Amino acid sequence: MPVNLLAPDPAALRPVAGLNLGIASAGIKKPGRRDITLIELAPGSKVAGVFTQNRFCAAPVTLCKQHLASGNIRALVINTGNANAGTGEEGLNRARQTCAAVARLFGVAAEAILPFSTGVILEPLPVDKILPALPDAQADLAANHWSEAAHAIMTTDIVAKGASAQAQIGGKTVTVTGIAKGSGMIHPNMATMLGYVATDAAVSQALLNQLVKNIADVSFNCVTVDGDTSTNDSFILIATGQAGNRDITDAASADYAALKTALAEVSIKLAQAMARDGEGATKFMTIEVEGGRSHAECKQIAYAIARSPLVKTAFFASDPNLGRILAAIGYAGVNDLDVNTLKVWLGDVLVAENGGRAASYTEAAGAAVMKEAEITVRVLLNRGDVNATVWTCDFSYDYVKINAEYRT
Amino acid sequence: MPVNLLAPDPAALRPVAGLNLGIASAGIKKPGRRDITLIELAPGSKVAGVFTQNRFCAAPVTLCKQHLASGNIRALVINTGNANAGTGEEGLNRARQTCAAVARLFGVAAEAILPFSTGVILEPLPVDKILPALPDAQADLAANHWSEAAHAIMTTDIVAKGASAQAQIGGKTVTVTGIAKGSGMIHPNMATMLGYVATDAAVSQALLNQLVKNIADVSFNCVTVDGDTSTNDSFILIATGQAGNRDITDAASADYAALKTALAEVSIKLAQAMARDGEGATKFMTIEVEGGRSHAECKQIAYAIARSPLVKTAFFASDPNLGRILAAIGYAGVNDLDVNTLKVWLGDVLVAENGGRAASYTEAAGAAVMKEAEITVRVLLNRGDVNATVWTCDFSYDYVKINAEYRT
Repeated sequence: MPVNLLAPDPAALRPVAGLNLGIASAGIKKPGRRDITLIELAPGSKVAGVFTQNRFCAAPVTLCKQHLASGNIRALVINTGNANAGTGEEGLNRARQTCAAVARLFGVAAEAILPFSTGVILEPLPVDKILPALPDAQADLAANHWSEAAHAIMTTDIVAKGASAQAQIGGKTVTVTGIAKGSGMIHPNMATMLGYVATDAAVSQALLNQLVKNIADVSFNCVTVDGDTSTNDSFILIATGQAGNRDITDAASADYAALKTALAEVSIKLAQAMARDGEGATKFMTIEVEGGRSHAECKQIAYAIARSPLVKTAFFASDPNLGRILAAIGYAGVNDLDVNTLKVWLGDVLVAENGGRAASYTEAAGAAVMKEAEITVRVLLNRGDVNATVWTCDFSYDYVKINAEYRT
Repeated sequence: MPVNLLAPDPAALRPVAGLNLGIASAGIKKPGRRDITLIELAPGSKVAGVFTQNRFCAAPVTLCKQHLASGNIRALVINTGNANAGTGEEGLNRARQTCAAVARLFGVAAEAILPFSTGVILEPLPVDKILPALPDAQADLAANHWSEAAHAIMTTDIVAKGASAQAQIGGKTVTVTGIAKGSGMIHPNMATMLGYVATDAAVSQALLNQLVKNIADVSFNCVTVDGDTSTNDSFILIATGQAGNRDITDAASADYAALKTALAEVSIKLAQAMARDGEGATKFMTIEVEGGRSHAECKQIAYAIARSPLVKTAFFASDPNLGRILAAIGYAGVNDLDVNTLKVWLGDVLVAENGGRAASYTEAAGAAVMKEAEITVRVLLNRGDVNATVWTCDFSYDYVKINAEYRT
């Protein structure tokens, strides 16, 4: 069960001027399932994206990168139920066919369309089902269909993920709204499984390109469910420029800072929602590694803890078997780490110091924290002043069940 | 259930001249459990070892390295039920106390004793229970107690692990016998969770030091159960020198090659036994990566497949959801990998080529291989002439159960 996560109130997902969403059913995996989403952008919208670094990247990821280079994006098309990954040249053809069909509907070039797919890998994309559903999705386009889109892009997600924020920029109210999906095969590397965040703010393409990387690094790139980096990870930032603010072109400006804060707020909520709704999750864990020499080494240690099946099963059992956390810190690959100077806390309870269990630690204190649904593990490395945070979930019987039965 | 693995017939584990084993019960974790093993070595025996690279290495690992440097080892003492890891300065004191007590029994220096511990991390070693049991273990010493020792060093292992081989060296019959334990927290890095392989061959200390690394690299360093590198991994090679062969001092000699082959045979059997008896295992998987540019990149890809929870749960379900294998190959970190030229086989069935599913592949053919208890995944990278092999097991409900309930 998702940990402290409810689907967003549809009314809480604010429309973004210049952006409409439409949903339809192509029956890709199950008849009647609403599995196609179109996002229409007003002319002049700017788009930036970061994508999976998986070498077996999906055909739509390859096309997205090509089309983004053209610089004039007018619509996004997303299908669930099939990843169109591990599909070779034919996969690219089918993604191109989908883009061409959407382009015809909107009267624009195929390069103005960004395609996205999520679902099972290594199976041909059923364009024969997708193409006939596209006009239905177009007919459904509306500015307030964010919640419907959040539902339509889900795969093994239990709860739809969406968030909104607003900021005052140059006397104008600017809106940020985003949706995301992801529950398994989640260990983003520069991006994550399908995240879309849009704002009506006006911002230069150069700054948007910078923002998409910065925001990914503090949000989606801090989540892991199972350590498996997907073939389809895509995080897309859209700026329709219709809020009426003066175009943001200076990265040192207060306007830029305000926009970045609002984008980060929405993106972090979406990223945390993925861990809260991680496959089989019963606990939401925050791993904070502080006092490191570099961001990379802090992240390395945080991910070693967050990925360890032994740590994750101990949290599932609410068992303070905390030696497993020390073992993960020890094998994280920071070769000159001095384990005698670091400290580890579970919630507020000091667990380890001086290379061993803290004298003040009691099993009862550890067990009390372990009963919580949200737990923070804090590691103080005491060798620098850099920090990193990773969000994850525990490892339960249901993770095995969900993934053993995924295709049935 | 262990995959095609039976405990060795006690009679099949050949004595090694100059080496005796004794077992006793200290009741460390459970009353009456035989949890203490002594291994006595004749004067002049040579010993070499490789150990975990986990920075939180256990106190006995630290002492082992110090004592091996002294060069004159006369006994090994092994306890199960407590890892004496994450125990700081007090852990070292308690390991030293244990060595001193064994040294007194044998009338040798404390530096002549190698201590080993396996079990729960972060809890104090109960020397008050261990020390009184040592004389019982000494009284039990016998050359034919290999099988008893293989049982006494187990933790979550279901099946005891042991193997023997013989070789003709310079007209003399040389024996190699080994035992090992390990079932979870298995992802050795230069060594593995407790492996002991002994021979009566005479071989120089320099060559023994070289052999222990070479043999570890083709055996224990090719196994993963859960990707967690233990704090206590130790692989020890013993040569008592009592077989009567002329001392082996030349790495280019036929004698050296014969000894290496026998040592590798025993060590590979023991290493594979760990994956066959991996926690919750229902399948034994061999991952072969061929045609790479370096051993490191082949190993990296093999481990990415072997560690992926998504791949492991698919094998548990006998579901040929083979896109997950492609995804793991893609995120393994070989950044210039061309996915269009590689090929993937499941058993004898060609699964993927040209960046996608092989035209000849059928779900029925994949499903038939998936039903087997032993499955080979072969990846041909087509970019060099180097190969690597990794052995692993699947990921089942029982893995979660075993590790959620480990301390109860």
